[in-house]
Amino acid sequence: MDKSSLLALLAEVQRGAVTPEAASARLADLPFEDIGHTRIDHHRALRTGLPEVIYAAGKTPQQVAEIFTRMAVAGTPVLATRATPEAAAAVLAAVPAATYNELARTLTLDPTTNYQLPTTHCICVLCAGTSDLPVAEEAAITAEHFGIRVTRLYDVGVAGLHRLLAVRDQLAEANCIIVCAGMEGALPSVVGGLVGVPVIAVPTSVGYGASFGGAAALLGMLNSCSPNVSVVNIDNGFGAAYIATLIARSSRRGEV
Amino acid sequence: MDKSSLLALLAEVQRGAVTPEAASARLADLPFEDIGHTRIDHHRALRTGLPEVIYAAGKTPQQVAEIFTRMAVAGTPVLATRATPEAAAAVLAAVPAATYNELARTLTLDPTTNYQLPTTHCICVLCAGTSDLPVAEEAAITAEHFGIRVTRLYDVGVAGLHRLLAVRDQLAEANCIIVCAGMEGALPSVVGGLVGVPVIAVPTSVGYGASFGGAAALLGMLNSCSPNVSVVNIDNGFGAAYIATLIARSSRRGEV
Amino acid sequence: MDKSSLLALLAEVQRGAVTPEAASARLADLPFEDIGHTRIDHHRALRTGLPEVIYAAGKTPQQVAEIFTRMAVAGTPVLATRATPEAAAAVLAAVPAATYNELARTLTLDPTTNYQLPTTHCICVLCAGTSDLPVAEEAAITAEHFGIRVTRLYDVGVAGLHRLLAVRDQLAEANCIIVCAGMEGALPSVVGGLVGVPVIAVPTSVGYGASFGGAAALLGMLNSCSPNVSVVNIDNGFGAAYIATLIARSSRRGEV
Amino acid sequence: MDKSSLLALLAEVQRGAVTPEAASARLADLPFEDIGHTRIDHHRALRTGLPEVIYAAGKTPQQVAEIFTRMAVAGTPVLATRATPEAAAAVLAAVPAATYNELARTLTLDPTTNYQLPTTHCICVLCAGTSDLPVAEEAAITAEHFGIRVTRLYDVGVAGLHRLLAVRDQLAEANCIIVCAGMEGALPSVVGGLVGVPVIAVPTSVGYGASFGGAAALLGMLNSCSPNVSVVNIDNGFGAAYIATLIARSSRRGEV
Amino acid sequence: MDKSSLLALLAEVQRGAVTPEAASARLADLPFEDIGHTRIDHHRALRTGLPEVIYAAGKTPQQVAEIFTRMAVAGTPVLATRATPEAAAAVLAAVPAATYNELARTLTLDPTTNYQLPTTHCICVLCAGTSDLPVAEEAAITAEHFGIRVTRLYDVGVAGLHRLLAVRDQLAEANCIIVCAGMEGALPSVVGGLVGVPVIAVPTSVGYGASFGGAAALLGMLNSCSPNVSVVNIDNGFGAAYIATLIARSSRRGEV
Amino acid sequence: MDKSSLLALLAEVQRGAVTPEAASARLADLPFEDIGHTRIDHHRALRTGLPEVIYAAGKTPQQVAEIFTRMAVAGTPVLATRATPEAAAAVLAAVPAATYNELARTLTLDPTTNYQLPTTHCICVLCAGTSDLPVAEEAAITAEHFGIRVTRLYDVGVAGLHRLLAVRDQLAEANCIIVCAGMEGALPSVVGGLVGVPVIAVPTSVGYGASFGGAAALLGMLNSCSPNVSVVNIDNGFGAAYIATLIARSSRRGEV
Amino acid sequence: MDKSSLLALLAEVQRGAVTPEAASARLADLPFEDIGHTRIDHHRALRTGLPEVIYAAGKTPQQVAEIFTRMAVAGTPVLATRATPEAAAAVLAAVPAATYNELARTLTLDPTTNYQLPTTHCICVLCAGTSDLPVAEEAAITAEHFGIRVTRLYDVGVAGLHRLLAVRDQLAEANCIIVCAGMEGALPSVVGGLVGVPVIAVPTSVGYGASFGGAAALLGMLNSCSPNVSVVNIDNGFGAAYIATLIARSSRRGEV
Amino acid sequence: MDKSSLLALLAEVQRGAVTPEAASARLADLPFEDIGHTRIDHHRALRTGLPEVIYAAGKTPQQVAEIFTRMAVAGTPVLATRATPEAAAAVLAAVPAATYNELARTLTLDPTTNYQLPTTHCICVLCAGTSDLPVAEEAAITAEHFGIRVTRLYDVGVAGLHRLLAVRDQLAEANCIIVCAGMEGALPSVVGGLVGVPVIAVPTSVGYGASFGGAAALLGMLNSCSPNVSVVNIDNGFGAAYIATLIARSSRRGEV
Repeated sequence: MDKSSLLALLAEVQRGAVTPEAASARLADLPFEDIGHTRIDHHRALRTGLPEVIYAAGKTPQQVAEIFTRMAVAGTPVLATRATPEAAAAVLAAVPAATYNELARTLTLDPTTNYQLPTTHCICVLCAGTSDLPVAEEAAITAEHFGIRVTRLYDVGVAGLHRLLAVRDQLAEANCIIVCAGMEGALPSVVGGLVGVPVIAVPTSVGYGASFGGAAALLGMLNSCSPNVSVVNIDNGFGAAYIATLIARSSRRGEV
Repeated sequence: MDKSSLLALLAEVQRGAVTPEAASARLADLPFEDIGHTRIDHHRALRTGLPEVIYAAGKTPQQVAEIFTRMAVAGTPVLATRATPEAAAAVLAAVPAATYNELARTLTLDPTTNYQLPTTHCICVLCAGTSDLPVAEEAAITAEHFGIRVTRLYDVGVAGLHRLLAVRDQLAEANCIIVCAGMEGALPSVVGGLVGVPVIAVPTSVGYGASFGGAAALLGMLNSCSPNVSVVNIDNGFGAAYIATLIARSSRRGEV
Repeated sequence: MDKSSLLALLAEVQRGAVTPEAASARLADLPFEDIGHTRIDHHRALRTGLPEVIYAAGKTPQQVAEIFTRMAVAGTPVLATRATPEAAAAVLAAVPAATYNELARTLTLDPTTNYQLPTTHCICVLCAGTSDLPVAEEAAITAEHFGIRVTRLYDVGVAGLHRLLAVRDQLAEANCIIVCAGMEGALPSVVGGLVGVPVIAVPTSVGYGASFGGAAALLGMLNSCSPNVSVVNIDNGFGAAYIATLIARSSRRGEV
Repeated sequence: MDKSSLLALLAEVQRGAVTPEAASARLADLPFEDIGHTRIDHHRALRTGLPEVIYAAGKTPQQVAEIFTRMAVAGTPVLATRATPEAAAAVLAAVPAATYNELARTLTLDPTTNYQLPTTHCICVLCAGTSDLPVAEEAAITAEHFGIRVTRLYDVGVAGLHRLLAVRDQLAEANCIIVCAGMEGALPSVVGGLVGVPVIAVPTSVGYGASFGGAAALLGMLNSCSPNVSVVNIDNGFGAAYIATLIARSSRRGEV
Repeated sequence: MDKSSLLALLAEVQRGAVTPEAASARLADLPFEDIGHTRIDHHRALRTGLPEVIYAAGKTPQQVAEIFTRMAVAGTPVLATRATPEAAAAVLAAVPAATYNELARTLTLDPTTNYQLPTTHCICVLCAGTSDLPVAEEAAITAEHFGIRVTRLYDVGVAGLHRLLAVRDQLAEANCIIVCAGMEGALPSVVGGLVGVPVIAVPTSVGYGASFGGAAALLGMLNSCSPNVSVVNIDNGFGAAYIATLIARSSRRGEV
Repeated sequence: MDKSSLLALLAEVQRGAVTPEAASARLADLPFEDIGHTRIDHHRALRTGLPEVIYAAGKTPQQVAEIFTRMAVAGTPVLATRATPEAAAAVLAAVPAATYNELARTLTLDPTTNYQLPTTHCICVLCAGTSDLPVAEEAAITAEHFGIRVTRLYDVGVAGLHRLLAVRDQLAEANCIIVCAGMEGALPSVVGGLVGVPVIAVPTSVGYGASFGGAAALLGMLNSCSPNVSVVNIDNGFGAAYIATLIARSSRRGEV
Repeated sequence: MDKSSLLALLAEVQRGAVTPEAASARLADLPFEDIGHTRIDHHRALRTGLPEVIYAAGKTPQQVAEIFTRMAVAGTPVLATRATPEAAAAVLAAVPAATYNELARTLTLDPTTNYQLPTTHCICVLCAGTSDLPVAEEAAITAEHFGIRVTRLYDVGVAGLHRLLAVRDQLAEANCIIVCAGMEGALPSVVGGLVGVPVIAVPTSVGYGASFGGAAALLGMLNSCSPNVSVVNIDNGFGAAYIATLIARSSRRGEV
Repeated sequence: MDKSSLLALLAEVQRGAVTPEAASARLADLPFEDIGHTRIDHHRALRTGLPEVIYAAGKTPQQVAEIFTRMAVAGTPVLATRATPEAAAAVLAAVPAATYNELARTLTLDPTTNYQLPTTHCICVLCAGTSDLPVAEEAAITAEHFGIRVTRLYDVGVAGLHRLLAVRDQLAEANCIIVCAGMEGALPSVVGGLVGVPVIAVPTSVGYGASFGGAAALLGMLNSCSPNVSVVNIDNGFGAAYIATLIARSSRRGEV
């Protein structure tokens, strides 16, 4: 779709020959920008509800900066995850308005403008121990980038149950709950039994020995006896927040 | 909590001394019925939104029938999953009004009375091949039991992409999509890229050799490049439907 | 050591030439009875505190019956674990006074005579779900065989935390706690955080799919964030009870 | 619980309105100190018998130093495990009275004051080879920190059985035995057959090739044919010592 | 075979006593050049259709340079894969005419002279994401080295299906298709369903957590529901191109 | 596409308005026959070169018979793999002209009519031992069904190398070679070094103990040092033959 | 080699034109008997020192009987391992002089005639527990079939070390020691430390839970700290005996 | 055993009161030298035929140097394996007469004096590729240290079978053959089929992707179809040579 055909389409919308819904549907399948190593999917938001996000791991700082810049130029909010300090430096040099969070390894640009929801829409992000913080923060910042209010409840592992029970009221307010835990990964099961909303479990690679890089937590979560628990990949805070955002945004609770 | 204290509580609600919310909260933590081998959680619906479900695997037909009967007597809708024909016979002898679905291995009693939602709330259940049907049906019947409208889209595996593209309109209507697939488990990723709602992926144990009983599909789904995909245990159609129900029920879409 | 040398040793004890401690030490290393396929270790109790137990799995009913009979004839209490109904029939034909527990798959003879302790010595055996009962009962019967009082607390899985909190007083009385759980194996971590005694975790093969025959529960327990948890093999209720017995028997708590 | 309510509780104890047991029980569930990234559990000793210990791995030197200092200020003995030299430097700068053991990677403060038991309470810590020393020393220092006398028996692997048989008398005196071994992990089974007390097996990550980071030793120990062996995570010397301490402290043997 | 016997053989061919086919067959089994650490197989092309290639991983830069030089001297085109920058420096110092591709980690010498085919012979090399580029390029350069025309189609992962459908015409022209993908490895199945030629699937080690270094993608590809998919080792772009070359070179399509 | 539109298309071809190539391309994407549990892909041959094949495992005998009959009625040759004797009975009752091969577990109908090629097109199917026969025969019958001449070379395992060297001439004639082997799976590497055509390796589940159901052979083949080896799933004789057919059919060798 | 060429060769030997050594070498590479499904290697003894043995698993009773008969007719001693009762019945019907050992699952014919050595050549076969007997007996009967004297030492597991120490003199006499053990597989390491001859370790599939079908024992043995231990496949008593035979037969010890 | 008791024993031997055999047996069980972190087993040669060897991995350079020096002082030949350059420097500083082989990572002192055998005793060490050299050299140097003649046959992998067949005569002379191979680990099976002596297979960690650090080669070797193959740990060249030495030393072949 070149520019003129886009204008033609929009003109048709303007004069009522094409409904906006039909135009949106047609645009959703339209092309990507091919910059050689990458095909940027500028219309992804039309198709899947949320814009494309840059997964910086395995890309050179230059590649990250180039993609980040193209998306910034296109005017959409931008999020990059798993960004190394080197990638952050390259992006910040090109797009000074971007923000780097070293703990969460995220780069964001103007995250809150487009997606702002009433503040009654919210999720909780829990983690079992201090070492799970990077994953939990990746989740929290991603959800905030998509316009969701986030309640952080950290270091509430099951070996000290009173810490979890003390935050029960906050759990009750959430549209969706993200639980990050390494080691035995028991926290999602316990949380799942306390609430009536979906729980997204994120196994973390925290642990040693027989944790096998997070595999023990992953298996535990997949076998959860709480039926409201689903699981994403080890350390995948971003994915959990993406799903939680989709759930929270569509929820009745939170509307005026 | 014995009957009299329950009555006392309800009387307080009646005269305004206790709000219904407070009463509900107190009841949510109240006891279970201890029948020796099992502690039935009659108030689970108050606490977690959906009633307890009987997981029949590993229980004797007698145990299944006993629990099923107690819950039927308590007046709640009842669902048992992974029920063998023997367990089904024992339950049907005790509760003739129950229904057994041999393919899905489910036993249900009066599933639609309590949870009926406007029919615009719906989910899709997809499966990749004919062999995935038992898992897909467990999911579909569970969701219907909880009052959700289900669109079944079966045998739409990725090796014949046109079959999937042919049902794209139906995908677009769902509040949540369940995808059951064995072998390489690629279908959730492809579906995830086509829609803007959460996708619950259910790996099935369909396959042979290096499928390792569903582990290949499980790993594939956990590594999905579509960020709206979360995963439940192998063959866990019930769990997927439980989560999909929570998502669909809270969704704005579907309200008048 | 033939009979005469044993008598000589005992005579020396009688006249004070050898202390009882020295005699006991010498006897502890003394031989076994070789019956061809098996070397029965009649003096094991002297050496390791508790008598040899017959592990019936992998032995023919005839082998089990033969060993059981030899030990019964020797006058020691006898316990066989993992006994099939066929093995039970063979033993009961040879030793009618023996008792078979079909759920726990144990065969016992006169278990309580020799080891009776004050009833204040006790352990708790917990299990997460109904399907864990065979393993839990193997543990409970083993401990009772060794003279320990057992409190059974079944179906107290973490998805309904109030069930566990309701038995907290009983947990507080135990010298040691055995926790049997399949699926995600989260219960030992939660229990471990509530008590100040050793917790022996027994993963069970209960579960399906990614439970991989109990491996998920095993890994979860090995990675427990509660430091008072140690683990035995999958389904090894006997081993857990053996260790719990050693701990409880040596404990101050329980003495007059 | 703020200070005034604590004082009120203690006043009630003083005038007999509340028994000390009841007061202790109430305090055991009381809150933690929330310092943002961590919730310090100051009353853990009341609830579980031994105070909280800092697991330094995965925490920044600053976080370790901050938690260490808070606990030191609270007057309790402090132990941090898996401390890097950098964490040690940060702690020693803040708490000069602390001690760093480079081999065991432990930081301790005044470990022996509070828990001192009669010296007849003791455990043995064995290791199979020289390379297991860091794990064995973590166990030994942890137990000594909790007031237990420790007999170290190192480099007694099963390929030179006479080295193990030479220390048999020392094994016989222990209330509990910790065995650290990598490679095939055979030592706990052999030791377990020689003694009548619980054996805590610690697989170490010592080995190469098919040791798979300690998994071979772990599996070997879980399958031990000696029934008095239970297992903790790979390299988890701390956990083994924690359990051994609980066992030794409650033992009759060792009392006057 | 020394030089004189070679000459004798060729003389026989000249005078018709030995057919060229028979001479070729005899030469195919003839010796290698033994340079101590390596036995160079100069006649491999006669035996298996394509010349020996240097696998540089695990060899010192000196060894790589020595083998490369020997083969260059022998006059055959030379390809080395998995070459580090250090190996490249050593080779370029010895053979300045060689070319190093840093992304693909290949060293080539005069690749196109001997194998040039009509340009209608071609393969496609696809990759799912930007991070798969090194593997895809290793494949593409290898095939070009062997005289095959390569169409590169990068960043066409299944989460944005329209990107793949947009290149369908190019897929239809290939004699064989190589598909490189990490994470869930779903792309080969989807491509396999669109074409009627063999698909060589190359799992890449791209991913994290439960990708287990490419094992998830590998398992997915082995379980492909498209029957025209076969698989090579993780990251083995070279092997895929070798096989694709054999297929394309023998194909009728592409001949005048 | 209903019948009339098909007729219209064909009429356009007749009068030259549409080329046959264009018509074929349009038909390739046309629909499937939806029989409830299965969507039969009648035009698969147009799209991918070979017709759909029924994978009978996991389908009921009735489902297999129904699909087999529909395809027979459509006039295409039919092949079903992994057919149990029960499925065979159901098919033979419905389609008496079909043939069941008990060793290979295949059901075929008129396999050779449509695909007959000059007999110079051929492949070899090798197996290492007698126990690999079912997999090798599945491959051989599949290839013959698709019109390829097959040379069977069985029981030529690497422990008796002279057996393999004795068939070297037959290997030299093939367009593609399928090698089935269990246990250590070494045969494909050895064969790969002897020939200049693609080798498709099929690991079989033959073996015991550390063969782990064929995983050892699978891993061996994936790590083959012969670069012309690619691999399909364990016991997947059908897939290997499908790919070998594609390769052989397009090969110049075999044409007049 | 047909009969006449064999006679010609033997005539040359007779008249001194060919040495017996040269004739033997030529015969060693000579053909096998091709009976369709199997290529019997009648001259294997010339090439590798011991005759071919029938591995009956995965072969039909008819195939086993046919091969057994051919070898019996050829006059060589015959051994079949892993023979089911059905295979045994088929063989005994065809070759009544054969012997079936049900525990070891072996079929033998005239095992001792050809290989008889001085009785001073001997090996020991140890097993850890009663359940390991089938594997140990397969080893013992195989070695005896090859003419080696076997000392059986059963049920000498490491949990009762005095049982092993009691047989130390018998260990000292052996040329090679085979150790069969399941569970943790510790016995080979302990035995290896006591003797100065090679120890062949045979992991058995005895155990449950985390023994993973013998994998735990296998890993333990591979990581043995005794350097004289090598390992064969799980339950591979035959292989261990084959190697032990080669070692014992070549040993100086045992010669007059 | 202090010096005087040793002298007393030797005096008894001298005057005939104790036979040399009896004295040797008594000494074999005698103590080790305890240097704190290590118990040096000076009499291991008496007990197991070959002296203790230092496994340097996991020990500090200082520990290695200390043990090496003690053994050098005791007058025995000394071998240390897996020695880093740092450990080598420490040893060479203390024992200048020692030799460091950087490729094999071995430190040796006077290896050939004590064990020299007739040069007809020999073994072969094979490796499949250049990258296996470090493991092969560890094996070769170890065997030479123990007085065995070693024939090195390197880079003879199965993909170029003629390279292996070219060295068949050298294989025929060996008393035992060590085969080091990574990747698919097929070489031991092929070699095993060519010879009549024990083959010790050493999987190496050479490979990438699905070689999983040598696990693929290990599994292949364990499943070898050649019955004369036994296996040691991944990269364990030392262990293979230790066993090969025991076999070769006891062999008749090689004596005058």
